[in-house]
Amino acid sequence: MEFDEILESLKSGKISLPKARKLLSLYSLEKIENIAQMDVGRKKRRGIPEVIFAENKEYDDLKKIIQRVMKKSNSVLISRIKKKDFPKLKSYVRKMKLNSESGKRTSTVLIYKKALKKSKGVIGIITAGTSDIGIAEEARLMCESMNCKCICSYDVGIAGIHRVFPILKEMKSKDVDAIIVVAGMEGALPTLVSSLVDVPVIGVPSSIGYGYGGKGVAALASMLQSCALGLSVVNIDNGIGAGAIAGNIANRASKN
Amino acid sequence: MEFDEILESLKSGKISLPKARKLLSLYSLEKIENIAQMDVGRKKRRGIPEVIFAENKEYDDLKKIIQRVMKKSNSVLISRIKKKDFPKLKSYVRKMKLNSESGKRTSTVLIYKKALKKSKGVIGIITAGTSDIGIAEEARLMCESMNCKCICSYDVGIAGIHRVFPILKEMKSKDVDAIIVVAGMEGALPTLVSSLVDVPVIGVPSSIGYGYGGKGVAALASMLQSCALGLSVVNIDNGIGAGAIAGNIANRASKN
Amino acid sequence: MEFDEILESLKSGKISLPKARKLLSLYSLEKIENIAQMDVGRKKRRGIPEVIFAENKEYDDLKKIIQRVMKKSNSVLISRIKKKDFPKLKSYVRKMKLNSESGKRTSTVLIYKKALKKSKGVIGIITAGTSDIGIAEEARLMCESMNCKCICSYDVGIAGIHRVFPILKEMKSKDVDAIIVVAGMEGALPTLVSSLVDVPVIGVPSSIGYGYGGKGVAALASMLQSCALGLSVVNIDNGIGAGAIAGNIANRASKN
Amino acid sequence: MEFDEILESLKSGKISLPKARKLLSLYSLEKIENIAQMDVGRKKRRGIPEVIFAENKEYDDLKKIIQRVMKKSNSVLISRIKKKDFPKLKSYVRKMKLNSESGKRTSTVLIYKKALKKSKGVIGIITAGTSDIGIAEEARLMCESMNCKCICSYDVGIAGIHRVFPILKEMKSKDVDAIIVVAGMEGALPTLVSSLVDVPVIGVPSSIGYGYGGKGVAALASMLQSCALGLSVVNIDNGIGAGAIAGNIANRASKN
Amino acid sequence: MEFDEILESLKSGKISLPKARKLLSLYSLEKIENIAQMDVGRKKRRGIPEVIFAENKEYDDLKKIIQRVMKKSNSVLISRIKKKDFPKLKSYVRKMKLNSESGKRTSTVLIYKKALKKSKGVIGIITAGTSDIGIAEEARLMCESMNCKCICSYDVGIAGIHRVFPILKEMKSKDVDAIIVVAGMEGALPTLVSSLVDVPVIGVPSSIGYGYGGKGVAALASMLQSCALGLSVVNIDNGIGAGAIAGNIANRASKN
Amino acid sequence: MEFDEILESLKSGKISLPKARKLLSLYSLEKIENIAQMDVGRKKRRGIPEVIFAENKEYDDLKKIIQRVMKKSNSVLISRIKKKDFPKLKSYVRKMKLNSESGKRTSTVLIYKKALKKSKGVIGIITAGTSDIGIAEEARLMCESMNCKCICSYDVGIAGIHRVFPILKEMKSKDVDAIIVVAGMEGALPTLVSSLVDVPVIGVPSSIGYGYGGKGVAALASMLQSCALGLSVVNIDNGIGAGAIAGNIANRASKN
Amino acid sequence: MEFDEILESLKSGKISLPKARKLLSLYSLEKIENIAQMDVGRKKRRGIPEVIFAENKEYDDLKKIIQRVMKKSNSVLISRIKKKDFPKLKSYVRKMKLNSESGKRTSTVLIYKKALKKSKGVIGIITAGTSDIGIAEEARLMCESMNCKCICSYDVGIAGIHRVFPILKEMKSKDVDAIIVVAGMEGALPTLVSSLVDVPVIGVPSSIGYGYGGKGVAALASMLQSCALGLSVVNIDNGIGAGAIAGNIANRASKN
Amino acid sequence: MEFDEILESLKSGKISLPKARKLLSLYSLEKIENIAQMDVGRKKRRGIPEVIFAENKEYDDLKKIIQRVMKKSNSVLISRIKKKDFPKLKSYVRKMKLNSESGKRTSTVLIYKKALKKSKGVIGIITAGTSDIGIAEEARLMCESMNCKCICSYDVGIAGIHRVFPILKEMKSKDVDAIIVVAGMEGALPTLVSSLVDVPVIGVPSSIGYGYGGKGVAALASMLQSCALGLSVVNIDNGIGAGAIAGNIANRASKN
Repeated sequence: MEFDEILESLKSGKISLPKARKLLSLYSLEKIENIAQMDVGRKKRRGIPEVIFAENKEYDDLKKIIQRVMKKSNSVLISRIKKKDFPKLKSYVRKMKLNSESGKRTSTVLIYKKALKKSKGVIGIITAGTSDIGIAEEARLMCESMNCKCICSYDVGIAGIHRVFPILKEMKSKDVDAIIVVAGMEGALPTLVSSLVDVPVIGVPSSIGYGYGGKGVAALASMLQSCALGLSVVNIDNGIGAGAIAGNIANRASKN
Repeated sequence: MEFDEILESLKSGKISLPKARKLLSLYSLEKIENIAQMDVGRKKRRGIPEVIFAENKEYDDLKKIIQRVMKKSNSVLISRIKKKDFPKLKSYVRKMKLNSESGKRTSTVLIYKKALKKSKGVIGIITAGTSDIGIAEEARLMCESMNCKCICSYDVGIAGIHRVFPILKEMKSKDVDAIIVVAGMEGALPTLVSSLVDVPVIGVPSSIGYGYGGKGVAALASMLQSCALGLSVVNIDNGIGAGAIAGNIANRASKN
Repeated sequence: MEFDEILESLKSGKISLPKARKLLSLYSLEKIENIAQMDVGRKKRRGIPEVIFAENKEYDDLKKIIQRVMKKSNSVLISRIKKKDFPKLKSYVRKMKLNSESGKRTSTVLIYKKALKKSKGVIGIITAGTSDIGIAEEARLMCESMNCKCICSYDVGIAGIHRVFPILKEMKSKDVDAIIVVAGMEGALPTLVSSLVDVPVIGVPSSIGYGYGGKGVAALASMLQSCALGLSVVNIDNGIGAGAIAGNIANRASKN
Repeated sequence: MEFDEILESLKSGKISLPKARKLLSLYSLEKIENIAQMDVGRKKRRGIPEVIFAENKEYDDLKKIIQRVMKKSNSVLISRIKKKDFPKLKSYVRKMKLNSESGKRTSTVLIYKKALKKSKGVIGIITAGTSDIGIAEEARLMCESMNCKCICSYDVGIAGIHRVFPILKEMKSKDVDAIIVVAGMEGALPTLVSSLVDVPVIGVPSSIGYGYGGKGVAALASMLQSCALGLSVVNIDNGIGAGAIAGNIANRASKN
Repeated sequence: MEFDEILESLKSGKISLPKARKLLSLYSLEKIENIAQMDVGRKKRRGIPEVIFAENKEYDDLKKIIQRVMKKSNSVLISRIKKKDFPKLKSYVRKMKLNSESGKRTSTVLIYKKALKKSKGVIGIITAGTSDIGIAEEARLMCESMNCKCICSYDVGIAGIHRVFPILKEMKSKDVDAIIVVAGMEGALPTLVSSLVDVPVIGVPSSIGYGYGGKGVAALASMLQSCALGLSVVNIDNGIGAGAIAGNIANRASKN
Repeated sequence: MEFDEILESLKSGKISLPKARKLLSLYSLEKIENIAQMDVGRKKRRGIPEVIFAENKEYDDLKKIIQRVMKKSNSVLISRIKKKDFPKLKSYVRKMKLNSESGKRTSTVLIYKKALKKSKGVIGIITAGTSDIGIAEEARLMCESMNCKCICSYDVGIAGIHRVFPILKEMKSKDVDAIIVVAGMEGALPTLVSSLVDVPVIGVPSSIGYGYGGKGVAALASMLQSCALGLSVVNIDNGIGAGAIAGNIANRASKN
Repeated sequence: MEFDEILESLKSGKISLPKARKLLSLYSLEKIENIAQMDVGRKKRRGIPEVIFAENKEYDDLKKIIQRVMKKSNSVLISRIKKKDFPKLKSYVRKMKLNSESGKRTSTVLIYKKALKKSKGVIGIITAGTSDIGIAEEARLMCESMNCKCICSYDVGIAGIHRVFPILKEMKSKDVDAIIVVAGMEGALPTLVSSLVDVPVIGVPSSIGYGYGGKGVAALASMLQSCALGLSVVNIDNGIGAGAIAGNIANRASKN
Repeated sequence: MEFDEILESLKSGKISLPKARKLLSLYSLEKIENIAQMDVGRKKRRGIPEVIFAENKEYDDLKKIIQRVMKKSNSVLISRIKKKDFPKLKSYVRKMKLNSESGKRTSTVLIYKKALKKSKGVIGIITAGTSDIGIAEEARLMCESMNCKCICSYDVGIAGIHRVFPILKEMKSKDVDAIIVVAGMEGALPTLVSSLVDVPVIGVPSSIGYGYGGKGVAALASMLQSCALGLSVVNIDNGIGAGAIAGNIANRASKN
């Protein structure tokens, strides 16, 4: 039920005040001192959990956020943790008796109380190079925090095209609902994948590249120009966003 | 089954030669004189029908393409037909005893022999302004040619935010699988929609706008920068592409 | 009276020489060694106090500037002080028996001798995220040094649109003369605010964002493209400038 | 009163249903066939009248819009009318016994039933060159439709700086509330004006210019970079927007 | 022998005056009234014939150029002839008893007196789409005027990757010295080709594409970013230039 | 023989299984733990050896890569080694009893077991300034690892045009197959060289430059715009890529 | 004497009122109806005559401007006259018994009463191609209207570098005070010229070019990046501006 | 005499071999180990001394360059010396018994044996802000090494326009041959200066600025777009280049 509807239903007597209060809590913000306002109801409202971008946050603030959010939610995703804060945070999480999973080559951590339920949603994640793995892993953690299962295959390349076919065959056999493809440089891999499958493909340009079209610009441009229909795109290095979309697709597909 | 698999299965005796030939026909190209090579098997292979971009094609060539493709397929989408060719093409289609449906404010035509089956997939399509309707209608025709049902609401605007809520309420009540949002100018509507729903949203920047960030550049940039997770993007004015992605999502969601 | 007028009035005998000298002092520059030329008359002439951008200045120079300017003015605004100089400067100010107020998450300091008079001007200041607060606080200090009162509400977001309404209601009830809205990423918040109020809105794109349209570029573009009439814009991160404009508007509105 | 407030007041019995209906009519959209949805309540709600951008509209649609809007409003502004439609529209307006005023060198027309009231708001409008006059006149018509008085001075130039002083002297003597400055090429005039006055200045870059920084890009950049505090900017050629802001400022300033 | 060497050899008596004159004629320019200066010696000096870009030339001037150049050379390439001049030029050439060959979908004409000798050089030319054929044909005519043989395969696509393999197999069997690949949109085909062959590949971005990265920008960027080593690039739509390079490579390879 | 062909030949009995296995090994990837997948067959398949970009790799990983690759190959090129790793790597290579050659002003190292064979291919390498030498040396090492001989002339400049002539004379006398020209700033040297020779020229824009057109942008643009036919381009600072192309050309030219 | 000085001198009695009036007339603007304000004193004040850009002006307005300006000045330069107005204007000028000179390949006309005096200033003008001649001729007419003599050499090219030397030798022998070099495409000619002479060189990028760096962008970038000291630049196609600078230099050099 | 002429004159016996050798020495390059090739004859040939950009050079190399160049020349300009090398270099120069002059706020040093002769050339140098002084001082040292006298006025600003007039009056009274104006931000000062003087003005955009149009981009654009004729431009921060041009102009003007 939407914000407006709740109000109207309350007004018309369709729902009781306690019910309205509970529904409205999906819209309430958890104010954490002066540090942040967490939208802790988003997981329920939109199926997408709250994500903390730790890049501009102090370590002590992160601890407070974890404390507060974990009172209300079962999990939280903390991304782009500063290198120096990473080990400290991990041991803090352990001390709090919380579980955590980190991604390879990334400083993103999924923190949770009890093991996340698995939906039937399955998502394929592919990277063109080894440098793209960090972004892909952010997507994986997001998908998993949305209860989906991930099948990952990294460092596939476009220059060695014969490596792509067996990977897609495996993903099809496992009936993936969507495929995320991370690629920098010329960013041609998502187009290739999209031309070979019948599920939606989400292209993530990574900021790998140099000179003209570097920092992901060429990859973004070629994904947007792709002549393979069925490919949509998120911004450069936005693994989290790609994961959220894929999670939405997979959860919708597997809900029926 | 993939190209490679067919070959292997044939080699290992798993499938017979006639079977292999039929499977391989999904990959054959229909060469139409020197005009075009149509990938007529794509509908079966990828669920996305062949689309003819008529912008650079002569009228006589279009006729030939229709003739040839309609021998093998039940439908074809012809987009961006030149203004002067539009009425001629429509009457040609009638003369050929084919059915057709055109979009509002667009020169895209969906041509078909028998009425398209409807899948259970439902797609919402929203535009910010009246100038975006042409792009939205290209998306609609694409979705319908992929057997999905569309719920359209045009000219919603961002400046009058109170118009958005009832539309989304209706779309939710009809259980849409994905929402396409077309917006030019500052392109803020997809972010707003994405923050209010739990289905994947596909943003289409339209080339409406002027001065700095005009021709859809600001709209594209703000959709890519969107802080609302769950939003993916296609290139400026790419209604056809958005339709294909939404169709893929909806067909997957409704197939189970 | 303008520079030219003063000369003419003097020539025609309309004003005396001492009067002319006093008037002309509004145009005189305070030369501080080789460091800077302070336009100390600007506050009187244009209603906007002198601002020192400390980014490229040595700490010793800053001290000299403060000493000199405070002989002629009641206040000075020093912005973008280097991190390492900030505490030193604050204690120097105290030692000088001057008052100071600093902004949150910014290294801008308003230094003054006696408490600043309050005009009747009231300005609303809103930010989309927590990262925008530093810019907003620069604007606030500028407004306050122009004798206006500020009503601030930070971290409103666009993704959680329901948070906006109560804030605007409060601002309206306090009869704000103008609203400053700071936003990075897709920069949609100023458009939304502008569509809901009847006072001038000043959009400040902040350099928050990444990938395509990052560093405030998407935010700037979408504010310039805004279809909500009544919105004007300053450059990326230019909180000081936004404050000056809002101060000008509010002082004009409250002067009558 | 805001949308939400109206609903709440109705619910709590503070206002009667007829009252609520009337208030809500400020938010209702006038749907004109399939052509446009006019936000006819904006004038009352936000002080800014509805504007029709005629660029993409057919002549017959314009007529319908005028008919419909003029039933509910006293005036409407129609901008960027196609050259061929301009004389037809003017004579149609006369036939409808409506008044109209057009701007010089622009195809924008202000249509009204009875003469617009004058507020006490006064706005100065300056252009750098003769080519900027069309944009300035769009701003003037907007200001006048918002009941303000305009003092215009066109073709002032930056290369002949001595022309600026007497103009500003006159504007000051008439106590303008805001000054709009339209400039193309290097766009330096708004900076100059802003450095000489104590009222808010709105810079409008015009698309005059050639080669590098042409089409208004250099003008926009130099206005955004301006070191003269007190200057805000709208997008290239956005005379209408500048008029709306200036009108908002002037009406606020003169309301007290 | 270089310009300087000729002078020195003459000075030192190594070569006679008549010999020097003949050698120097390679550097002489054919001044054709006020229309153009033709570098008629370039074919001998650099192996690349003179090319006339007809885009900015009047028809009468083209006739004069042909007359003059054909007195000294066996062939000339005239590219980008205006549509209206094309048939006139062709019949003029016939009347002059010259031979000509035009490319498909291009208005480039190779004019020659006697059939061009064939070197042993062989060049492969591939296009991604049908819209790229005009550019490819400019390259072909250039290669042929440099005495090379061309093997062309147009409309190969990237979305249908299975079409690429048989084409490359054929080109390899014919021992091509270099391959030119013309592609617009995302421009991924040259990377793919380059990853599969051991001869130099020249990528030509074509100005096919729309929205972000349109007009060949994405194609250029992705070719420059290509992770497939062995790929070099010319400017957008520069078929003539690509032909000249390929011709140089092939003639060098086949000269030994 | 291509991947597909091998399979087909095996299927049709044209080649034996051991033969097929050997041929297919050209396509196998050497998986080195989780660090990288080396395409060790590329040297045989495409004539271009595997290159390790060490920029994002840890020192220990580099050691593992060298160990593994040198089991299968005679040489490997490691480019952009971190400054701190350079001496360690060199001594490790010595300890492994491998040979190595490093370039001047670059941290690229060619590692080999036995001295590389020399083909008859000869390549000229020229730089405009001393700052371009590092890029040129990357190209040289690539060419040499492709068995070609290089003639290098660095710091030729465009401003002192008289220095170019004797260099080209020498290169011609040594019958170079291709010339690589590295230039930053305005990047005019490749155009000049290309206008004076009859072999293919590969322009490499270097990231030398400042202000507008800096970081190699002006150099890239002017090379792409070059009116001297016969010039192709690689991306900014891509010495490795230029070397691969030149090596391909030279090996082809000298193979016959 | 400057504006300010005149006023001061008048006030202090140093000059008489009639003298002041005459001096001030240098600053007066000739208001020509609503069409334009001509700065007819500029020729005397700054040595640069008034120039009319006819691009946006109606033919009848041009006639009025000529009539009015020629009452006060001996000459006026009218540039970018519309094609259709050109012959009419020429015959009007004849009818008015005025002299005129037009440039080749340009629609700029210098109109004068009596033959222009020649200063001793001499200016060299060079173009790279034939397409640059129109821009060069605008510069020539400007120089001549500033009483300088021009030595022109068009279509010199960079690809045929041997053509440059004799031209520069001639210009030096005629003791030119400055050289204007117009070049499009890669814009390398001004750098080359600048490296060979000891007088100031003014580079004019022309809008000749295509694809990446087209419309003069590459030419501008490479001129700004030029490593040849002594080269300054004007905007793309700004022949008039280049002429004014060269005229200023030459008149200064020859005045002593 | 030009390179070619020398050769020809020698050949024809017009000049003797020793004379030719001496003349040719103007073209010889001083090769300093592997560090640099100094064009020590440029001062005589083109009037512009050799400049060493120290940014990419090691301290020991700088010492070698100074040693070598000072054997042949009376002076050398070393610019952009690394901060840590600056004091060492200064004391090294003293130890070598050479004189030196450094600029304010810049790390550029002019090193000379005997005091530089003064030509009659006079150059005005103006900056908009204090941050522009470093660039201005590079220009000053260049002008002085070309024997010109400089009149400098820094921190003039555009926002305080009344400061400009007395400065220009002084420069005119000292009969400057050219004026260099350095400005960042919106870069309007050169336009203003150029509109008030009759000598050539050279605009130098400085990299001062932020956000959109920052790093000197807006300043460059507005100088190139300037509607004040008589203004030419060099690249961002190119004080050295501006000095060379001004020196060329002044020396030419004062030579007669």
